[in-house]
Amino acid sequence: MRVEVFFTPGEQYAGVLADHAVVVIDVLRATSTMVEALANGARAVFPVTTADEAVRIAQNIGRDQALLCGERRSVRIEGFDLGNSPLEFTAERVSGRPLVMTTTNGTAAMATVAAAKSVLIASLLNVSAVAAELAAEGGPVAIVCAGRERRFALEDAVCAGALIRGVHERVGGTRRWNDAAAASVQLARRHLARIDATLRRTSAGRQLIEQGFGADLAFCGQVDRYDLVPRFRDRQVTLS
Amino acid sequence: MRVEVFFTPGEQYAGVLADHAVVVIDVLRATSTMVEALANGARAVFPVTTADEAVRIAQNIGRDQALLCGERRSVRIEGFDLGNSPLEFTAERVSGRPLVMTTTNGTAAMATVAAAKSVLIASLLNVSAVAAELAAEGGPVAIVCAGRERRFALEDAVCAGALIRGVHERVGGTRRWNDAAAASVQLARRHLARIDATLRRTSAGRQLIEQGFGADLAFCGQVDRYDLVPRFRDRQVTLS
Repeated sequence: MRVEVFFTPGEQYAGVLADHAVVVIDVLRATSTMVEALANGARAVFPVTTADEAVRIAQNIGRDQALLCGERRSVRIEGFDLGNSPLEFTAERVSGRPLVMTTTNGTAAMATVAAAKSVLIASLLNVSAVAAELAAEGGPVAIVCAGRERRFALEDAVCAGALIRGVHERVGGTRRWNDAAAASVQLARRHLARIDATLRRTSAGRQLIEQGFGADLAFCGQVDRYDLVPRFRDRQVTLS
Repeated sequence: MRVEVFFTPGEQYAGVLADHAVVVIDVLRATSTMVEALANGARAVFPVTTADEAVRIAQNIGRDQALLCGERRSVRIEGFDLGNSPLEFTAERVSGRPLVMTTTNGTAAMATVAAAKSVLIASLLNVSAVAAELAAEGGPVAIVCAGRERRFALEDAVCAGALIRGVHERVGGTRRWNDAAAASVQLARRHLARIDATLRRTSAGRQLIEQGFGADLAFCGQVDRYDLVPRFRDRQVTLS
């Protein structure tokens, strides 16, 4: 199967969105948090790029219903209900609620693929479920890594590699991978078995530890905790 | 030593140029070709971004002296003296001559670091020489990979990894590497010993083979053919 990985939202992939199954990955932490929120019964997640936009959309939905979620520099935005730590998104907080979320890298990456017909949301928490869905859909795949401040993030590449391996194990056939896809598979081979140690050494992981979010790393490193495939369509992420 | 790798010129590294030793890598083929040209006696290489600019600068230098060099879609630009195949840059053609060169990825990447105090030019052909120079200079290093059409290129990452390993072997100390630097070292560990096979499988390598430039891959894959450290300063690349 043809698989193309893009390590940062700065790479030029607009041309492939129309005819590829698109996946977005932001292991630390936006896509992990979305998966956790939906697993805990959130009705939908509306990813947006700015805090102002988040407030406006929450007002449209109904401020008594919607939860405002997101971070800047890893920390909850002032006045928002929740930050971007998956551990905050408990069933008690999110069940039945629509969430409006803005994060530095993850939701910004999602904005760059909004023109795609549909987009799957992947993290280590649900990597095999997404791989199975991609294998079932067939056709070429484009994986967009959120990266970190428009730079390469190792944890996203490792997750991309795990996803590609999962798809390839299911469909076989010729590997038509771009350079970044081939590199991702090699990085997954090296790091997946010791993902906790790897996450603690990444740039994003080190920053989260410094800011007191060390527990998020262990959480986001749980491979296949959920058999869920969130889909981003019509401006919202839901369980399809 | 602190080392930061940027896989594409689209990543945001303007902030590090002032206080880092900067290196540019475009294994297939611009930096390999520059090294070969200088090894064969070219007086200087002026990297520019457009064909028009190349013609203008060649006229300023003196059109009877300067050679116009470069490619678009891997092929020599019409009316230019040379393309971007290192095999064209023989002593007979280039010795004593100033070259004005424009390529799709390599010289475009160089334009993004023109604000740096000085920039070293690396390829597999001279990777240990550049590593020794960086080790001697000390201080933080920023390695900018030209990539391919603003996407990740495996061969540049492998060269970056070989370079970092070379620096680390010389200076030791704590590894303060960003995620891309750590990934590059791992990719070099896997690919450097079988670089010919790897180059033939990369996106850039496959395209060059299709266009009849297969011999360039074997040439550009020669590790440490030269003990040369080209430096980009005052708009030109010379042997320092």
